[in-house]
Amino acid sequence: MSPSSLLSSTATGEALTPQDLGVGARFTVGVMADDFAGIILAALRGADAADLDVQTDPVSTLVRGSEQRVLEYITAVVAGAARSGRHVTASILLSRGCPGEVTCTVTPGLLAGATEVPDLPATGIHASAHWSLYPLDDTGRPGEAPDHLRDIYAAIEYAKERGTYVRGEHYATLLEGDLADVLATVAAGWVLVGRSVQHVTSHAVISIASPREV
Amino acid sequence: MSPSSLLSSTATGEALTPQDLGVGARFTVGVMADDFAGIILAALRGADAADLDVQTDPVSTLVRGSEQRVLEYITAVVAGAARSGRHVTASILLSRGCPGEVTCTVTPGLLAGATEVPDLPATGIHASAHWSLYPLDDTGRPGEAPDHLRDIYAAIEYAKERGTYVRGEHYATLLEGDLADVLATVAAGWVLVGRSVQHVTSHAVISIASPREV
Repeated sequence: MSPSSLLSSTATGEALTPQDLGVGARFTVGVMADDFAGIILAALRGADAADLDVQTDPVSTLVRGSEQRVLEYITAVVAGAARSGRHVTASILLSRGCPGEVTCTVTPGLLAGATEVPDLPATGIHASAHWSLYPLDDTGRPGEAPDHLRDIYAAIEYAKERGTYVRGEHYATLLEGDLADVLATVAAGWVLVGRSVQHVTSHAVISIASPREV
Repeated sequence: MSPSSLLSSTATGEALTPQDLGVGARFTVGVMADDFAGIILAALRGADAADLDVQTDPVSTLVRGSEQRVLEYITAVVAGAARSGRHVTASILLSRGCPGEVTCTVTPGLLAGATEVPDLPATGIHASAHWSLYPLDDTGRPGEAPDHLRDIYAAIEYAKERGTYVRGEHYATLLEGDLADVLATVAAGWVLVGRSVQHVTSHAVISIASPREV
């Protein structure tokens, strides 16, 4: 059985969507310009939302779908806003394993389905980020106690290999690089932890073209 | 022995600061205006940073001190920016129990020191927030297994009593009310969980005067 068929079906053969598995994101884009609304709306319109469930409210935009498509969409919206040339911030929350509010029942196929580290083409846009990864593990792996730092260390090693890791800072890890590489790092930690932990979230605050660094 | 003396000393009598206990925050304010830099700098200058450790970098501002003073400072900066009348967003990360990067050794007095739910006077500014609370509990309470949802449910009950709870949404809880009440709710969940869990973080994305709601 291929990983994707493990993801998409239960023992009873019922199809499970990313929405069923609680795979999705919330993100909030800030554009430091009087015309922020026009810039953000154009960026949202310019991103391919086919096959995604997207809902925007006054605080954030909810996007649900496969890990790959969710990350493609967020990258496109943030890159679109950044191409205005203005200072842009983005607050991003990736979540898996808790569909709905706070109901995190163990879902068959969820861990086996966490196979795909999103592959995102370079944007040409330099970004910095403060990143936090949260494995919310109540049970541990078979034969092991929960250890949320073990999983965080593994994700940081991945970031170092990818070249986006700059340093650990208080409460967050500083990442820098092409926007696509930074977002792929944030998503990779999330997916890698998702292979052994039911409920995992990954938060990042992205900063592009801050006057403090340009 | 009073709670504050439990917080401030170890069995050897050595003083422990909030910094030693990993108590602090990172936050990023977005102001949707061409003059965002002037508005944010004025808001930072207008907030009382006495007795706080404050460092601003291109991604976020780090603030360390007591729970009460950290929350007073964040409230003052966000309220100051919002008084520009522009659409303002703020991404806030409250953390305790992990001073440094990812070192979370058990600290004597840490749990007993989580006594103070910050008390913040009303600002007159209406805010909405998506809030996420993360008890990162590897060990559980004495005689109980880790259960991160138990602690989250308790914090949501507190938000309902306080009147800021609107509803649970995918991956976050929607809060609304005076900015001070919203931030106090986010901080209360953090402090309340901190009484039984070494490492706990609370994330919120705040939105003020969004054109989608005004």
